[in-house]
Amino acid sequence: MSIDDKVRAIVKEFKAYVPGKSKEEIARNYGIDPEKIIKLGSNENPWGCSPKIAEKLMNEVSNLHQYPQPINPELMDEISKFTKMPTENIIVGGDGADEVIDNIMRILIDEGDEVIIPIPTFTQYAISAKIHGANIKWAKFDEENGFKLDVESVLNNITEKTKVIFLCTPNNPTGNVIPTEDIKKIVESTDALVMIDHAYIEYSKGEYDLTNWALKYDNVLVLRTFSKVFGLAGQRVGFGVTSKKIVDYMMRIKPIFSLTRASQVSAITALQDKEFFDRCLKEGIESREQIYNGLKKFKQLEVYPTEANYMLVKVKNGMNSSEFCEALLKKGVIVRDCYSFEGLEPYYFRISIGTFEENERFLKIMSEIVE
Amino acid sequence: MSIDDKVRAIVKEFKAYVPGKSKEEIARNYGIDPEKIIKLGSNENPWGCSPKIAEKLMNEVSNLHQYPQPINPELMDEISKFTKMPTENIIVGGDGADEVIDNIMRILIDEGDEVIIPIPTFTQYAISAKIHGANIKWAKFDEENGFKLDVESVLNNITEKTKVIFLCTPNNPTGNVIPTEDIKKIVESTDALVMIDHAYIEYSKGEYDLTNWALKYDNVLVLRTFSKVFGLAGQRVGFGVTSKKIVDYMMRIKPIFSLTRASQVSAITALQDKEFFDRCLKEGIESREQIYNGLKKFKQLEVYPTEANYMLVKVKNGMNSSEFCEALLKKGVIVRDCYSFEGLEPYYFRISIGTFEENERFLKIMSEIVE
Repeated sequence: MSIDDKVRAIVKEFKAYVPGKSKEEIARNYGIDPEKIIKLGSNENPWGCSPKIAEKLMNEVSNLHQYPQPINPELMDEISKFTKMPTENIIVGGDGADEVIDNIMRILIDEGDEVIIPIPTFTQYAISAKIHGANIKWAKFDEENGFKLDVESVLNNITEKTKVIFLCTPNNPTGNVIPTEDIKKIVESTDALVMIDHAYIEYSKGEYDLTNWALKYDNVLVLRTFSKVFGLAGQRVGFGVTSKKIVDYMMRIKPIFSLTRASQVSAITALQDKEFFDRCLKEGIESREQIYNGLKKFKQLEVYPTEANYMLVKVKNGMNSSEFCEALLKKGVIVRDCYSFEGLEPYYFRISIGTFEENERFLKIMSEIVE
Repeated sequence: MSIDDKVRAIVKEFKAYVPGKSKEEIARNYGIDPEKIIKLGSNENPWGCSPKIAEKLMNEVSNLHQYPQPINPELMDEISKFTKMPTENIIVGGDGADEVIDNIMRILIDEGDEVIIPIPTFTQYAISAKIHGANIKWAKFDEENGFKLDVESVLNNITEKTKVIFLCTPNNPTGNVIPTEDIKKIVESTDALVMIDHAYIEYSKGEYDLTNWALKYDNVLVLRTFSKVFGLAGQRVGFGVTSKKIVDYMMRIKPIFSLTRASQVSAITALQDKEFFDRCLKEGIESREQIYNGLKKFKQLEVYPTEANYMLVKVKNGMNSSEFCEALLKKGVIVRDCYSFEGLEPYYFRISIGTFEENERFLKIMSEIVE
């Protein structure tokens, strides 16, 4: 018997990992100056992170040999101020919001339990659910209806085995929010945990922010992240806001040291630099409008309205999304080809906000490819 | 039905998380100057991390808004040079070696599979195994025999359901290494994965380093870490060296972005600063000798020989370990009370190496407590 026979069947169903191409490789492959590549593929904050982080990181270097604090009181206080939620309802993940998703699977999923995932949506939910042995029931964001959530497709899938329902709002990659009354209907129809993923909520109108539902319902967990407007995707910090009971269960089994010292300091400083946050948010929304209005002019594209820092675009010039993204790549623009999102036809790409200058260059390049 | 009923039975068996006390709390509780507290509880490098890391971190701040590279080629090359192993046999964990342990559970353990853990040992193995649904078969490091591994206790527990055997060498908290011929016997007796945890191997004689067995056997994974002599416990970087096949399976399901940008830069710089590494290792071994020889003089203590950066001590003055550790705490010394290690009577504590000055103060304080 070889080690192969010891590996779980479910793991063998996962595809082998294929590393993405680095800027350097792309530059080399297509003969482009790497400095000129415009990276609009990962929904990051194009203005970086707070400039105050540098000094705070310096001060932390002399502590890096010590294990991190599992719970950093200063970070908890700052998150509490930011969200207006009590610290006892907050759990911080050391691999960003992904860790919180994973911890939820870990406390709730036994082999054969069910989760409901409306698609197209963030792909991590299905990956985490599957590896924990869950059966996935697919619901849908309805393409025919501007990707509005098909609420019935969620409700009809609820059974006594349902453990988690994932609702991404604003939804990635479609950009639209789920109407509050629809979320309410779902939350009140089930005992299963409803995970409301608010990774992009800062970019939405305030009325869509349901973070305080974590106190209102005992089956809601709201996911937040430092990877977007806070500009810290590289530091992997996210958090969940939920009932104290769920926080306590997660704390029993979460990887206890997973949030690094440098990440703790970065997140605290980001929360304290309100000015940088406000500016990035304001300019981020302006950047979104610039791209949206620019792309709207092309007849061969369909651009979807968005409440996030990215938007979904359908290609209608005869190319599929992979051909289109490759054409952009040759001109030095990286966008996200959406062929890998379950539940989408192969004609979509997602584009993130850039700096105003990047957006202008991007729109000019687009005019060389589509009408 | 409440959310409680949705939580897995196994999670309810885990104890609630109780946060440890910070230096500040200890100082306040016992009226001690926090600057004078000697922290010898976590097997860290008392000389910190490479001073070259500060500048490299500064240069990385402008990239922190971008997701980390899932595989950093420079880091892989440096680890490859350090271990003399090919990069295709290396997998880096973003929550240190703990993530590698978790990934192994994730690819191998279905509900009801078995793992073998000789105790007392690093507690994380059992936590990770249990949460993944494994049945744990306990083997033993034999207290009657200087905590030598009882090889038969491992071999007798091997069944067709055995998926992983954990061998920590040098063993935490006992400090001794497992003889190479004993490990060989175990590896060659089974198809199960043998995880050889070498977190502390740098402090041992070279002959005990079995990292290259990852190429020799297809059922061996060797764990290494940056948390010890490299002085980066706060940055959570560890790695596994194993067959390409196992690396590939783990890459399918590992949290793909879990290693932060700051951690990548820290680890690369640590590997490049050979001088700092060599000095910390040399002085670390001297520090160990200083403590060992100092503690040997107390008749009311039994000190165990060690190949790591810590040692196990048995208290024989009538106190149990918790009473003894509290007595030390009152005088400003933090050591690791070993009552929480399965398989140890409540008379042991573990002490890590300190700076020479810390060691002197510690030994003086000890003389106020024991004879």
